[in-house]
Order: sequence, then structure tokens, then C-alpha cells
Amino acid sequence: MADKTQIQDDIKAQGEVVRKLKSEKASKDQIDEEVSKLLELKARLGGDDGKHQFVLKTPKGTRDYNPKQMAVREKVFNTIVGCFKRHGAETIDTPVFELKETLTGKYGEDSKLIYDLKDQGGELLSLRYDLTVPFARFLAMNKITNIKRYHIAKVYRRDNPAMTRGRYREFYQCDFDIAGQYDPMIPDAECLRIVHEILSELDLGDFCIKVNDRRILDGMFAVCGVPDDKFRTICSTVDKLDKMCWEDVRTEMVKEKGLSEEAADQIGQYVSLQGGMDLAERLLQDSKMSQSKQACAGLSDMKQLFTYLQLFQVTDKVVFDLSLARGLDYYTGVIYEATLTQATPAPAAGALGSGEESASVGSVAGGGRYDGLVGMFDPKGRKVPCVGVSIGIERIFSLMEQKVEMEKVRTTGVQVLVASAQKNLLEERLKLVSELWSAGIKAEAMYKKNPKLLSQLQHCEECGIPLVAILGEQELKDGVVKLRTVASREEVDVSRADLIEEIRKRTAEV
Amino acid sequence: MADKTQIQDDIKAQGEVVRKLKSEKASKDQIDEEVSKLLELKARLGGDDGKHQFVLKTPKGTRDYNPKQMAVREKVFNTIVGCFKRHGAETIDTPVFELKETLTGKYGEDSKLIYDLKDQGGELLSLRYDLTVPFARFLAMNKITNIKRYHIAKVYRRDNPAMTRGRYREFYQCDFDIAGQYDPMIPDAECLRIVHEILSELDLGDFCIKVNDRRILDGMFAVCGVPDDKFRTICSTVDKLDKMCWEDVRTEMVKEKGLSEEAADQIGQYVSLQGGMDLAERLLQDSKMSQSKQACAGLSDMKQLFTYLQLFQVTDKVVFDLSLARGLDYYTGVIYEATLTQATPAPAAGALGSGEESASVGSVAGGGRYDGLVGMFDPKGRKVPCVGVSIGIERIFSLMEQKVEMEKVRTTGVQVLVASAQKNLLEERLKLVSELWSAGIKAEAMYKKNPKLLSQLQHCEECGIPLVAILGEQELKDGVVKLRTVASREEVDVSRADLIEEIRKRTAEV
Repeated sequence: MADKTQIQDDIKAQGEVVRKLKSEKASKDQIDEEVSKLLELKARLGGDDGKHQFVLKTPKGTRDYNPKQMAVREKVFNTIVGCFKRHGAETIDTPVFELKETLTGKYGEDSKLIYDLKDQGGELLSLRYDLTVPFARFLAMNKITNIKRYHIAKVYRRDNPAMTRGRYREFYQCDFDIAGQYDPMIPDAECLRIVHEILSELDLGDFCIKVNDRRILDGMFAVCGVPDDKFRTICSTVDKLDKMCWEDVRTEMVKEKGLSEEAADQIGQYVSLQGGMDLAERLLQDSKMSQSKQACAGLSDMKQLFTYLQLFQVTDKVVFDLSLARGLDYYTGVIYEATLTQATPAPAAGALGSGEESASVGSVAGGGRYDGLVGMFDPKGRKVPCVGVSIGIERIFSLMEQKVEMEKVRTTGVQVLVASAQKNLLEERLKLVSELWSAGIKAEAMYKKNPKLLSQLQHCEECGIPLVAILGEQELKDGVVKLRTVASREEVDVSRADLIEEIRKRTAEV
Repeated sequence: MADKTQIQDDIKAQGEVVRKLKSEKASKDQIDEEVSKLLELKARLGGDDGKHQFVLKTPKGTRDYNPKQMAVREKVFNTIVGCFKRHGAETIDTPVFELKETLTGKYGEDSKLIYDLKDQGGELLSLRYDLTVPFARFLAMNKITNIKRYHIAKVYRRDNPAMTRGRYREFYQCDFDIAGQYDPMIPDAECLRIVHEILSELDLGDFCIKVNDRRILDGMFAVCGVPDDKFRTICSTVDKLDKMCWEDVRTEMVKEKGLSEEAADQIGQYVSLQGGMDLAERLLQDSKMSQSKQACAGLSDMKQLFTYLQLFQVTDKVVFDLSLARGLDYYTGVIYEATLTQATPAPAAGALGSGEESASVGSVAGGGRYDGLVGMFDPKGRKVPCVGVSIGIERIFSLMEQKVEMEKVRTTGVQVLVASAQKNLLEERLKLVSELWSAGIKAEAMYKKNPKLLSQLQHCEECGIPLVAILGEQELKDGVVKLRTVASREEVDVSRADLIEEIRKRTAEV
């Protein structure tokens, strides 16, 4: 019982924490986290009957999607998948978990964020961390050397919500990749065209696609005097330039990573450069840069890329930016990242980052070339060159949820409600709704024997159903249905024989 | 090294097993299982360089879907989702894992098949076992008392493949449920109408939907003299009547479950009965059956159900069958199961059961009423009546994969390939394909600088692309494109200005 008293005290204290946060109008995310702690304490105390001691919640870092969110999600998916299909992509699916060893050694330090399954006998399994490694495994396993595929599915990361507040542990990825040995920069340019198409079509405001190349970065590090073994770590510091000012980045390079001040300053000059094909040409002439073969290869390809981007009519949004680094180790060539450039409205509660993350809120797509990953899975190390892009679909959902008026989002496409104005017409309603279904019309009838006409009309208002087919004794005698337009309240008698045609006509107009 | 020799011996022996199975033309499933053991052994031995010692496979009981399978899947999903939407259903999504305690106590003995996640600190989690329990948790958590929703997602069961060969451990469920306090049997009848619509539209051959009611079963057990505490276990024996003959079922009841021979024989008389509304009426008059209040309630509802089914015009396929029991504990009223009645072709390798399972191969949908489940999650035990149906989507995929000619399945919808007959026209090709994308046409160009015309035409044949827009020096000069119909090999010059319209016209016809 001492334990029980302790829990009761904890509940009181935790209740205070929640009240305080609410009075301070803290973020929903923060409040949710503390409420969840409170609920857990209450659950530990147990209910009156001891029957419902469990916590009624989804796991930390996960969420349900309600019908309105699903409707928004479907709309976004349709746009994106429509674009992928326009470009001739196929789709595949892979299991939600992989053999643990399939994921081992692919994510560097982030490996600690992988969800492992309990060893219940049999194989050791882990939830997929992204869609790229399963894709590479799929290619190697099936000896596929060229494919253009998209894959939309959930991935799992045991991210620490305290660090990256508002990020989910279960979230969608939405990847498009082109695998195959082709002439340089043609598939790479198509990936950028796809990002351009999707962001334009989703109409989320102005955006910018930064491009760079791993070879240009590495070449730059070399000519600036970065020791070989410091390339990766200096690269990851450069990657912070979207969140930190140059001075802080420079300090990290020199103080933490032990780079010489001279090298850091040389890097500083390069990473401030932005441009297009002209910049690539200038750097090819640059006395230092031109000393690096790698950099030159990257710069020639960058020129080639811009030629194709011009043909694809997307250069208005693409910037060659030497500060773009991107974290993942497996990139070998072109890299890119798209960000929204307009000030976006305040992030939806719990949906987007805050504080140290806010600077990168705008990132909505990213990718690059990874020519070595598939070879890591092939028994003979055979390489399959790949380039791809991942659309930041969760961020896009959040933005769409802010953009649309959620209360007005329709969650069904019901065209007509079959209603009755009098009692004892259930059977007639069911007969009619059945006829409508058979004709392919989206229709409903209420599951009550004698619903009130008012409550039937209210249902239409709530759900956005545009038409009501009203049955009454008189209508049945006359062989007609009273067809009511919900918005205008107009009613007109339509003969049963013409009803389906009339509904089709009216809902096609909508 | 002794260990290594042992593994080499094992590899040899396992190689023999595989060769033997292949020579005996064993099922692909069986061969795959033994090959996978062989690969594991080889992996344990390690490669030459020790770099690729891992096994290149998906976890046991899981599979990838390749583009052709995805195309079939998409077609099936479209039909099913189309039906759900016609009936005004919304959709939701829930996380792939739940708190372990959410699943605890919901699946009886089957709980041992639940996948748990490794305890990596934090909450104890399990992969969802079905979509019904997460749905009930969702309703209770959000205090939703009425909704009509569908949910299509993967669920996870650590089934023993030796027992249920060919079943997957990761598979789709496809559920439609109506929650809410309504007049009896109206939503129940709609669920059956939905099964009827989906199976008719998928055109998988003739089918039959058996219906029964848990209350009729329980009433029957009571009047036949089954002790209260044996209801569930006797019910699960009755459930085997689709796989075992009555004699064997009777033996199990008497010998294993300790039921009296007299009670067993009385059950035997009832469970042989099949009919429609007439049977429900007859049993309401039955001297024994009519003694059970529960049975009478179930039988009156059954009559009511058939009235609605007549209005919905689905009685041609629905049979009231007293032998239908269904396994799950949570059903409280009507239960149903749809089976394909035509002899189906041999199951696709690895896709369907064999041996002891073959009798139930035909089952493609099932469900029933479960009025108590949501209350198990509500802190105050408030009930939300529910009725639903689960479409056996994996089985349907397998059947569709047998039905369609997989080699002819198109995995993309590309309408036109932009090709060139001469060299140095890459830029012109990219410019044109870009124009087509902007017009919303599904188009491709090959990622080579100078692909051969033949290889471009072959690509169309392989992928089923119906049109080729061919560019050449002369065409460019004349401001036209040579539009070729792949099937007929006919070619016609179309002016650039008319091209998009012409492609739209031609592919609308297809």
C-alpha cells in the first residue's frame, strides 16, 4: 500500500506538470507526452475493478490516421503516384522486417535506432529503417540489373523524441529510384524533373532544389587540405550549414574535428558558392579545384546535368550549391534536396520539428546517386548503379493538413442518401439503395427502421452528401423519387426509370 | 576447421535433398524451404573474401511482391476499395505495432503466434495480429460510437510453416466494419451484400456464403445437453466440419472432449441442416430448439436477415448452415463465411495450402458480429456493437495470379515511347518526352545517348507500350513526329502541334 500512496503522489505531481504546460500553452506534442506519463501512472494504480489497468494509447512515436487525415493522405498519394506512373515506374513491395544482418553496416551510427524483434526462436529480425536498403537487397537477390520503381511504405526508427521532437518513429517513405547502367546524368535529371512536377502539382508554395555531387565535395576537401580520413566527418559538419551559420560550422571543424584553420577557411570560400551551369564551368577553370580529378568529373557531370534540366524545363528551381552535403554514406555522385522557400504557417501540433529543427522544416524531398549499395549485397560484388529520390511525405501531409480546411474534408464520396419521409419504408429504402449500388452509384441508407427525415438530412450535411433520394407513400404510388439537392434544398420528382441517369448527370457536374 | 568440414558435409547432404525434391517435382514451396536451408549452410561457411557471409533472402514466411504481382494486387485492391467506397465507407490507419498489453487476452491460444519486439528500453510492443483489435482500440480511445470504415494493411503471425504450409507470416488483411447501435440485421445484411458484390466483380467463379449465429450455436449446444463449460471447445470441433467428416468430428467430441454420445448425436442432426428463411422458421417451431431463448433470438434475427438479403438480391448465394462455427471467441451474433464452390486450378506454388488444408482452400471471406470487443477497451466498459467482414485478399491474389496470364500483365501504363531512328537526337527526345509529361501523358525515353531503334521497339514489345513517337532529322525539319502503332507496325506522320491530341485519342481507344 505504501507503493500505492507513492503512485498517488506521483499522479498528483504529474497532474501539476500537465496543468502547467496547458496554462503555458505548450506544444500539443509536449502536453501529449506528459499526459501519456500521467495515464501510465494512473494505469499502474489500477481501476476500481482492476479490469482496465492498461493504457489506451498507441506506442510512443506512432499515431493513428483518422478518416479525414486518410482522405488528405489519399489525395497526396494520388498526385505522387500519378507522377511516378507518368514516368513509367513500376512498384514493388518488401516485408516490413528484414533479416537483422541485411540492415547491419548500412546506417553507420544510426544503426542504434533500428527496431529489433524479440528472439522468439528462428531468425533475428529488424524492422526496415528505410526503403533503399530493402530495394538494394531485392535487386541483388533477384539479379535485377535495371528497373525504374517506386515504393511507398512505412519505415521505423527508434528516434529519441526528446532530441527530435515531433518526429515519428513510424512514418511513410515514398521513394522513386532508377537502377541500371545508363549514359551519365539522364536518369539523374529525370529524378529532379519528378521532384519539380510533384512539388508544383501539390501546390505547396515556392520551392528550391539544391544539387551538388559527392565527388565535387570530396575533391573540394582534398584541394583544401582536409586529410583523407577526415572527409566523412568534415562532410557531416558541412551538412549542418542549413541549420548553423558558417562561423559555428567553422568552429566545429577546427575545435571539434581538429581541422586546420587554413583548410577551414578555404572550404568556407567554396561552400558559399551557388549558381547554375556557369558555376560548374567557373569551378572547372578554378586553379585549385581543377587539380582534383574527382572534382572535375563531378563538375563535368554537373554541366551535363544542367543541359538536361534545361530540356526538362526545370532550371528555374534548381541551384548548384556547394554547401549541400546530405548525411548518408552511400551516395557516390549527384545529391539533391528540395526545400520550400516560402514562410510556411506554424507547424501543426506534433507534426513538425521545433527549436533546433525549425531551419530544416522546409525540406520536402531529397536523394542522389548510390552506385555501390547493390554490390554490397551481391555475392560477387557486382554493382548496379542507382539514382533515386525520396519524397518527404510526412512533412507534406502536415503541410496539406494545414492548407486544407480539415473540417470541410470529405471522407467518403457518397453521391446520394436514400431517405424516407414516413415510417415503415425501410424495405423500400433498402431495395432502392441496392439498385443504386448495382448501378455503381455510391449510396447509403441509414441503418434505422424509421429514421427522422431531419436526421437523414443532417447526415447529408455532416458528410457532404450532395443528393437525397426521398421515398414516400405518394412517390411509391406515382413511381417516382423526390430528388433533393442538399445545398440548394431544391426538390424535383424523378421517375424511377430515370433516377440513375439523373444522379449520374448531377454528380458528374459536381 | 573441424566445424568447417562438418558444415561442408551438411551442405553436401542438403544439396542431395534439394536435388531429390527437384527430380521428384516436389512443390515449389517445399523446394524453396530446402534451398533456403542450403543457402544458410553455405552462408555459414562464408565466401572467399569473408565479405558476403550473410544470407540473401527475406525472413521466413515473408516475400517480396514483384512488379507483376503488384499490378495484380492493385487491380484487386481497386475492385475491393471501389466496393467499400460505393457503400460509403471511410478508411483509417493504425501503427503496425501496438502496446503488447493491447493485444493481450484477445486471441486465446493463438497469442503464442504474436511477434514481440525486443525490449530496447521503453514500452513493450507487439506487431498487430489482425486489424479488428486495433480497430476496437481506436474506437475506444477516440470515443467513437459509430463509423463505417475499411482498413487494408498487413498483419503478422508467427505461424508454424510446417503445420500450415504455404501460409505467410506477413499478409494483408482487408476489413470492412460497421460500428454503431442500429436496428438489428441491417448492417449485417450490408456486409453480406458487400461480399456478394466483391466476389461477383472479381469473377473468381461461383461462390457460396454460409451464415449462422453464435446464439443459435450456443442454444443448440444447450438443448443438446452440452455442459456450459464445454461450449467453446465443442464449438471449435464443429468448426472442423469443413475439413473433417461428421464421424471424425463426433469421435473428437466424444473421445477427446468427453461429450456424451447422446449429445453428440443430437448435435449431428442439427449441424447437417442447411436452408434459408424456411429453415429458420422450421427451427423456431422445433420442440427442442424453441426451448432456448438464445436460439430463438438468433433464429428470429436470421429470418429478419433473410428478408433484407432478399431486398439486396443476394439470397441466390446465401445459405443458413448450422455447421458453420468460425474460430474467434469474440463473435456474439451472426457469423458468415464465403467459399468458392468451383474446383479451382491447382494452387500457385507456395501460395495456398496443401494436404490437410486443401478443404478450406475455397474460403475467401468471413466475418460476423462482435458486440463486446470495444467494451474490453473502454475504461467504463461501454459497448459499441460492431459487425464486419474480412476479405481473404491473399487467397484472392493467388487465384488472380493463376487466372491472368502473368507474362502478359503490364506493370506500367506507359502510353508512348519517345524514340529516335538516328544518332545525336537525345536532346530532341528529352525535349519531347518533357512536353508529353507536362501534358499528363505517360511517356518514356530510353536513358541512352544513342539507342538503336530496334532496341527501343523491343522495349515497347516487352512492356506493352502501344505507341512510339519516332524522331528523325527529316521529321524535325518537317515539324512532325512519326507515330507508330506497335501492334500493327503502322506509321503515320503527325504534326507536333497535333501530337498530344492524337496520342490521347489513340490511347483512349485502347
